[in-house]
Amino acid sequence: MRVEIWSDIACPWCYIGKARFEKGLASFAHRDEVEVVHRSFELDPSAGEPSGKPVVQLLADKYGLAPEQAEAAEARVADAARSEGLGYESGRLMNGSTFDLHRLLHHAKKRGPEAHAALLDAFYRANFAELLPLGDPETVVTVARLAGLDEAETSAVLADKDAYADDVRADEREAAELGATGVPFFVIDRRFGVSGGQPAEVFTQALEQAHTASGGLVQVAGQDADAPVCEDGTCDVPAERP
Amino acid sequence: MRVEIWSDIACPWCYIGKARFEKGLASFAHRDEVEVVHRSFELDPSAGEPSGKPVVQLLADKYGLAPEQAEAAEARVADAARSEGLGYESGRLMNGSTFDLHRLLHHAKKRGPEAHAALLDAFYRANFAELLPLGDPETVVTVARLAGLDEAETSAVLADKDAYADDVRADEREAAELGATGVPFFVIDRRFGVSGGQPAEVFTQALEQAHTASGGLVQVAGQDADAPVCEDGTCDVPAERP
Repeated sequence: MRVEIWSDIACPWCYIGKARFEKGLASFAHRDEVEVVHRSFELDPSAGEPSGKPVVQLLADKYGLAPEQAEAAEARVADAARSEGLGYESGRLMNGSTFDLHRLLHHAKKRGPEAHAALLDAFYRANFAELLPLGDPETVVTVARLAGLDEAETSAVLADKDAYADDVRADEREAAELGATGVPFFVIDRRFGVSGGQPAEVFTQALEQAHTASGGLVQVAGQDADAPVCEDGTCDVPAERP
Repeated sequence: MRVEIWSDIACPWCYIGKARFEKGLASFAHRDEVEVVHRSFELDPSAGEPSGKPVVQLLADKYGLAPEQAEAAEARVADAARSEGLGYESGRLMNGSTFDLHRLLHHAKKRGPEAHAALLDAFYRANFAELLPLGDPETVVTVARLAGLDEAETSAVLADKDAYADDVRADEREAAELGATGVPFFVIDRRFGVSGGQPAEVFTQALEQAHTASGGLVQVAGQDADAPVCEDGTCDVPAERP
């Protein structure tokens, strides 16, 4: 089974939803058969350079909230994060484009699934728990280095704006094709969808539903019933020509 | 979209079927959206050390064929391979367990998809075109080194019989759950199945059928309709506590 998770580093519910999903996965009997793949999604593809202002202040400005209201809202998100055992400090700074972070995540993916998982966690932690400015390339290089990526390679990827850009866009196009409008967005075996930072139990149930459904493949029409196979240690051979 | 291909290095129809699939994929309009994942399958899980005898001779012994009949059968397989542009020499030697080769393929997978693809092609070529004895660890180390893997790491994986053993078994268990009895076995988006070394056009049609069907996700039941999401640059906040 495979679960694909579309998310953005700038999205607190992706950070929290990831932990909830992992808790739900841990309660799933067939968890060893599950492969998890994280995919790119930009919450705001039109975002430019980060403003340097804390996100809370921007939200207050945008929705005409009093600063206390915006801070209280962010504090409730922080509570939700902490109750999942996640570090979370109000005052995060990331409000610019996350495109370069997603490009780097694809770079890490080429280094294997562990490198990719380590970088994703490092970015979330940097943004939500450590309040590091991920709009700053030097900070990004440091965070990536501490997550195990080569510093020179990271810098080269950041400098080359085309590097992995198509991979990010391909993920985003797939999300759109699958009907995602927001994140986190979870897809199991390209057949079952779950939206948002659901409780852990919902993820467990979703995995159980998908597992029950799996195994029933649709045999593609138009197959040659005599197409050669190898089976039980022996292989078909083509018939002798007449 | 994702295509998973279960196959064994010892299986000529896997070698040929891979080329036919790739030709079918090249004719598919949305080929850029397709990710291909190769998975492990042992044609004969009970195979032990290779006998050192050519496969043709073993087949002749096993089925009571005259040597000329066995050779003629193998020559027809060779014709099928060559008509796909593949190197193929009759006289291959690999008739022992392929478990260690699959363990190494999983090791390469950890190094990223390109490392994995290079090693798989190198093993096929070594077995079918170059007639190298893949039952011999030194030969395997050399083939892996030429495919870009670190020699010391390869030797360490070969020496540690537990390394990646669970990954190979997990692939094989999944194949069984999906109903595979022989290889090559192709699964698109865990929903559509294609068996055997089908003509390239069948693969193109299968990809088209799967593409038409994709996008229609089943929404998992029991979801909290108010689960928090981030959408269009903004994120839900939990309601204030009463």
